[in-house]
Amino acid sequence: MKIIPVVGHSKSGKTTFLEKLIPELKELGFRVAVIKHAHHGFDLDHEGKDSYRLKQSGAEAISISGPDKVALIKDTKEELSLDYLAKEFFPDFDIVLSEGFKNFPSPKIEILRNEISSNPLCKDGELILLVTDKKINFKTKQFGLEDAKKIATYLKENYLEKPDKKIRARLTVNNKKVPMKSFVQDLIGKTVAGLASSLKDVENPKKIFIEVNLEKEKKKK
Amino acid sequence: MKIIPVVGHSKSGKTTFLEKLIPELKELGFRVAVIKHAHHGFDLDHEGKDSYRLKQSGAEAISISGPDKVALIKDTKEELSLDYLAKEFFPDFDIVLSEGFKNFPSPKIEILRNEISSNPLCKDGELILLVTDKKINFKTKQFGLEDAKKIATYLKENYLEKPDKKIRARLTVNNKKVPMKSFVQDLIGKTVAGLASSLKDVENPKKIFIEVNLEKEKKKK
Repeated sequence: MKIIPVVGHSKSGKTTFLEKLIPELKELGFRVAVIKHAHHGFDLDHEGKDSYRLKQSGAEAISISGPDKVALIKDTKEELSLDYLAKEFFPDFDIVLSEGFKNFPSPKIEILRNEISSNPLCKDGELILLVTDKKINFKTKQFGLEDAKKIATYLKENYLEKPDKKIRARLTVNNKKVPMKSFVQDLIGKTVAGLASSLKDVENPKKIFIEVNLEKEKKKK
Repeated sequence: MKIIPVVGHSKSGKTTFLEKLIPELKELGFRVAVIKHAHHGFDLDHEGKDSYRLKQSGAEAISISGPDKVALIKDTKEELSLDYLAKEFFPDFDIVLSEGFKNFPSPKIEILRNEISSNPLCKDGELILLVTDKKINFKTKQFGLEDAKKIATYLKENYLEKPDKKIRARLTVNNKKVPMKSFVQDLIGKTVAGLASSLKDVENPKKIFIEVNLEKEKKKK
């Protein structure tokens, strides 16, 4: 899964660009999710609706589940990182595009419209590509505002298909991520794969997920 | 985490009851989430909003992240089970109340208002307790429609605090849950706990989460 932040000055046209890019990436066969950065008190839920009433009554989280769609609204103690959100919600997606999150340390796409600003937000080396209606003196590959199809193809050929053959393992203990060097990931990954493969019903494991609970189900309060 | 479905005939007052019960359970110190069953085409998102536009353009999923709240809307191939939803979204909660899901095979709370029906939906043995304004010939403990505080205390004392000392492990391979007998869970749980404990930065692991990817990051399409 690749996270690609789409950044730009306010009103530069990030949403409009994403609306064009998403169908092109889907067309190329990728599973695409989007993470949007929002300011305080964004609303999804409406006053008067059952889900709103339940949330208001004090539930820390609510999920609404329908025949072909599921929604979740959850309180958080602080703003969640793009990395955390992508791994928590979209581990099985090919591409996670973000709108905003310009401080995320991975190569980005910037949208720059001359009408809004003539200076990019990002430095040359921070970008995968620049989408602009102006010629910028950057080494970064540049595309026009209407080039969504070309951009999707460019991403596919130049950015998305670098295969990573290493076994990757992610470990969370007591809700905190534990950093692991690559060889430790490899060791843990192989051990877990071995354990899983020894069970009947398991054939050709590709993605394994284990959750272990060492605590009593409910502590006395 | 305990899942408690709150069921009842249509218009029996499930949401109204939950609105009263949730704050009482919170008051007792529990972390509470709710899962609401919805019919086709429930809407959370509004036409014209950025999040709506991005979802419409073809993104399979969108998350909106703010300073103290996060939301997720995701397409699903089929209706997700209550069990799956609770484990996916709320593994760290104490109580997951559901509105609806009357076929879920765990003890339930039923709301029965005389005005709507005089016959419970559930059988006597299926209920933790019955909330009603009518005397029903059930062995199940019965409460009135306004007894949210008493009900919260009753749940705490009689249903929620049965400690479970077993190590529990959950395993998903290629996005499918692998059923494991209790001793296999115990074995896998202890192995994983041992692996995790051997890493520096890990102290007193209670909840461990491992994800292993044996596939290349991106397959050629």
